[in-house]
Amino acid sequence: MKKLTVELLLTGNELLSGDVIDSNSAFIAQQLGLLGLEVTRRVTVKDDLDMLSAEIAHQSKRADILIINGGLGPTVDDMTAHALANAANLPITCHKDAIEHLETWCKKRNYELNDANKKQAMLPQGCRIIANELGSAVGFSLVLNDCLIYTTPGVPRELKTMLRDEIIDDIRQEKHIEHTTDVSRFQVFGLGESTIQEMVNLKFPNWPQDIELGFRAAMPTLEIKLTSHQQSAHDNKPVWMKKLTDLLGAHVVGLGKTSMAQSLLEVLSERNKTVTFAESCTGGLMASQLTAMPGSSAVFEAGFVTYSNKMKSMMIDVSEQTLIEHGAVSREVVLEMLSGALNKSDADYGVAVSGIAGPSGGSEEKPVGLVWIAWGEHNNIQTCALYLPLGRTYFQQYVASAGLDLIKRHILAIEEAPVYLESRKAV
Amino acid sequence: MKKLTVELLLTGNELLSGDVIDSNSAFIAQQLGLLGLEVTRRVTVKDDLDMLSAEIAHQSKRADILIINGGLGPTVDDMTAHALANAANLPITCHKDAIEHLETWCKKRNYELNDANKKQAMLPQGCRIIANELGSAVGFSLVLNDCLIYTTPGVPRELKTMLRDEIIDDIRQEKHIEHTTDVSRFQVFGLGESTIQEMVNLKFPNWPQDIELGFRAAMPTLEIKLTSHQQSAHDNKPVWMKKLTDLLGAHVVGLGKTSMAQSLLEVLSERNKTVTFAESCTGGLMASQLTAMPGSSAVFEAGFVTYSNKMKSMMIDVSEQTLIEHGAVSREVVLEMLSGALNKSDADYGVAVSGIAGPSGGSEEKPVGLVWIAWGEHNNIQTCALYLPLGRTYFQQYVASAGLDLIKRHILAIEEAPVYLESRKAV
Repeated sequence: MKKLTVELLLTGNELLSGDVIDSNSAFIAQQLGLLGLEVTRRVTVKDDLDMLSAEIAHQSKRADILIINGGLGPTVDDMTAHALANAANLPITCHKDAIEHLETWCKKRNYELNDANKKQAMLPQGCRIIANELGSAVGFSLVLNDCLIYTTPGVPRELKTMLRDEIIDDIRQEKHIEHTTDVSRFQVFGLGESTIQEMVNLKFPNWPQDIELGFRAAMPTLEIKLTSHQQSAHDNKPVWMKKLTDLLGAHVVGLGKTSMAQSLLEVLSERNKTVTFAESCTGGLMASQLTAMPGSSAVFEAGFVTYSNKMKSMMIDVSEQTLIEHGAVSREVVLEMLSGALNKSDADYGVAVSGIAGPSGGSEEKPVGLVWIAWGEHNNIQTCALYLPLGRTYFQQYVASAGLDLIKRHILAIEEAPVYLESRKAV
Repeated sequence: MKKLTVELLLTGNELLSGDVIDSNSAFIAQQLGLLGLEVTRRVTVKDDLDMLSAEIAHQSKRADILIINGGLGPTVDDMTAHALANAANLPITCHKDAIEHLETWCKKRNYELNDANKKQAMLPQGCRIIANELGSAVGFSLVLNDCLIYTTPGVPRELKTMLRDEIIDDIRQEKHIEHTTDVSRFQVFGLGESTIQEMVNLKFPNWPQDIELGFRAAMPTLEIKLTSHQQSAHDNKPVWMKKLTDLLGAHVVGLGKTSMAQSLLEVLSERNKTVTFAESCTGGLMASQLTAMPGSSAVFEAGFVTYSNKMKSMMIDVSEQTLIEHGAVSREVVLEMLSGALNKSDADYGVAVSGIAGPSGGSEEKPVGLVWIAWGEHNNIQTCALYLPLGRTYFQQYVASAGLDLIKRHILAIEEAPVYLESRKAV
C-alpha cells in the first residue's frame, strides 16, 4: 500500500503569540502513530479567513489526510467551518445533526440555545458530523481534492476524546488500515538514558529491530517506551520487556505511568504496613508525594518536618550532644532522626534525610548537595551519604525519590544495591 | 511604516512525531512581540532536504522576516544550512568565523574537532554568523527574496540566549524598529479571570486601550499581565498598575513571577517571625512549598504531618474526646491541631488543615472537598470551612495556597476577608 501523507493545520492567534504552547499536535501525532501514520508537515496560522482558506486548499492537494485543529467555537474568531466551505466552494448551511447536538447539550446544562451557539451548527453542505461528548462544538469531516479532512476542537480534553473515540476508528475504516501500533512503558529511577542504552547494547546485541526503544526524561525518573508496529512484534514484545526489566532490576519503579510514591504505596498496602518520614532538607516533600496518592491513609499516619536542629530534638528526640558533635548533616543524626520518628509514629518503616539543599549553608567539608539518608525499621537501619550538586529544586526531588526508593527496596528485601549508591556516593 | 510580516519555520522529526512539544516558537513569538512584531504563520516540517528547501523558498516570498529553528547540529538529520543554500541557489562553503568558533569551543572543552563538528561550519556562501555562546552550532543570517532570514539552534537554552542577546537587536537595527514592548505582571490568588475582568470593567470603564490586560491561569494562582507597546503607555502604566492592584487588594500575591510561598517567606523574614503547619489532608504540601524556597530555614523550623487521628493526638495533643465528638474534619479539631503545633514548635504563627481530599472518605454530612482551616497565633486563632470539590490534586493545591494566604493576611493584619471565604464557603 502507498504510504499515506498526513498534514495538520492549527488555527489560533494564541498559538502564534506565544501565550499558549501547542500540546494538541503532539497528541494528534501520537494517536495517528497508532495507525502507523506519520505527520510530515504542520502549519499554524492566525484566525484569518483568507489565510485559512488558502492553507486548506493548498494542504488538501498535498496530503491524503488533513486534520484541522481549533476554530470551531461560537465566537467571531472561530472560522474553520467558513474557511473550509470557501476552500471547497460549498455553501454553509445549518446542519441538522449539529443543531440537534447543540439542543441536547444546552438542555442538559439548562442553558438557553443562543445565536452564538447556533453558529456552531452552520457547516459546509454535505459534511459528516463527528460527535463531541464534552463540548458544544461538533467536529466534521469531508473530502476535498481526494484529501480526507477532519476538523477538531482546540480544547485539549475535547480533542482527545473526539480523536480517540471517533476519528482514529473513522480513519482506519475510510483508509482500510490494518496496521496497529502498540506501546508498552515503564518507569526507572537511578539510571541515566545513556547508561541504559549501553547496558542494552552489551547485553542484547540482538535486540529486535521491530521493537523500538525510546526514553523520556521525567526528572528524577526516566520513562522507557517499547514501541512495535506489527502483530509479530506485538507478540514478541512481552519476552523482551521481561528481559529488559530483569536487566534493570529494582531500578524499575513500576510498569505503566506509575510514580515512585505510587509504587511504594502498593508495596506497603499489599503487606498492610505503614511508613513514616523524618524530613529536614526535603521539608515535607516525601510526605506530600505519598499523600498525593489516593489510598495513602492506609499506609501513612505521620510525617515529621524537622527543619531546625531544635525541632530534631523536640519532635523526634535527636540528642543535642549528637547535633553538636557531628552536625545536623551526619550519619549519626539521621540515625537518631529515624529511630525517633519510628518511636513516635509507631510506623513499621521509615526514612530520615538531612542535607544541604543550598544555595547557601554549604562548607568545604559539607558542601551544598550533600545529603545523609537513613532508612529501614527498628533494629535494622541502613544509611548512605550522597552528593547531588543539582540545584535546590532538583536536589530536593532527587533526595525524596531516593528515600522512597531505598525504603521500598528494604521492604522488598532486595539485596543488590542501586547504582546511584555508588555513582552518587559522597566521598 | 508598513507592518512587517513574520513567519517561522521549524524542522525536526521529533516535533512532528509528538515526542517533543514545541516550546521554542512560543519563546520566539514573545521575544518578537517586544519589537511589536507578530508571527502570522508557522510551518513545521520533517528533516527532509527537499521539503525544507521548498518551504524556505515559499516563505521567503511571503514574509519580511523568517526565523528558522532547528537543524544546525552535526548529524545527517541537520540540514538547515544545505536547504537554505539550495533555496537561495548559493554554494556551501567553509565559513571562516564559524570554523574559528568551533575551534575555540572545542579547545575550551578539551574536545578534538572532528569531521561531524566541522560540518557545522559549512554554510551558504556570504551569510553572516550569529554567535552561539552555549553550543557548537552558530546561527547565521542572509537575505533572500527581500526576506531577512535567521537560522537558530533547536536546543532551547541555546536558542533563548542567541535570540535575546543577538537576533532581537539585529532585527531592530536591520529593520530600523523603534518600537518597544513592556510587560508588567503580578500574581493573584482567590479571584477568577472573569471576576477580575468584571471588576475592571465596572471600576475602570476608561481603562486605557494601549495597556492590554492579559490573564494566565497557573492553578491555583492567576497571573495578570499588563502589556504596553509605546513610550506614552509605558509611562502611564505604573499608575494603572497601582489602581488595579489596589482594587484587587490582598488577593494580590505579589509582583513579578513570585509564588504564594515566596510571598509568605518575605513577610515572615521582614518581621523575623516563624511559622508552623499542622497538615492532615495536604500531607506536607504547605511545608514542602515553603521549604522549596531558599532562605526558608530562617522562618520555618517544624511541620507536623498528622495524617491519622492517632497522630493528631500523639504529635500535637488533639484530645481523643474532641476527635470522637466532632470527627477529624471539624472546627474543634483544627483549633486543637493549631494550638498543639504552636505549643510544640514554638513558632509565632501557624496553619492547621483537615479535610477530605477524596476520592473516597466522604459522607453526606462531610463530602469529599470539605476542609476546615485554622490559622493565627496563640490567643488569636481564626477558622473557616471551605467546600472545594476539585479533585484530589487540585483540592490539595488549593487548600495549601489558601492556608499560606490566610496566615499571610493575618500577619499583615488585613481586615478585609478574601472573596473565596464567602464564594467557596462550606454550608
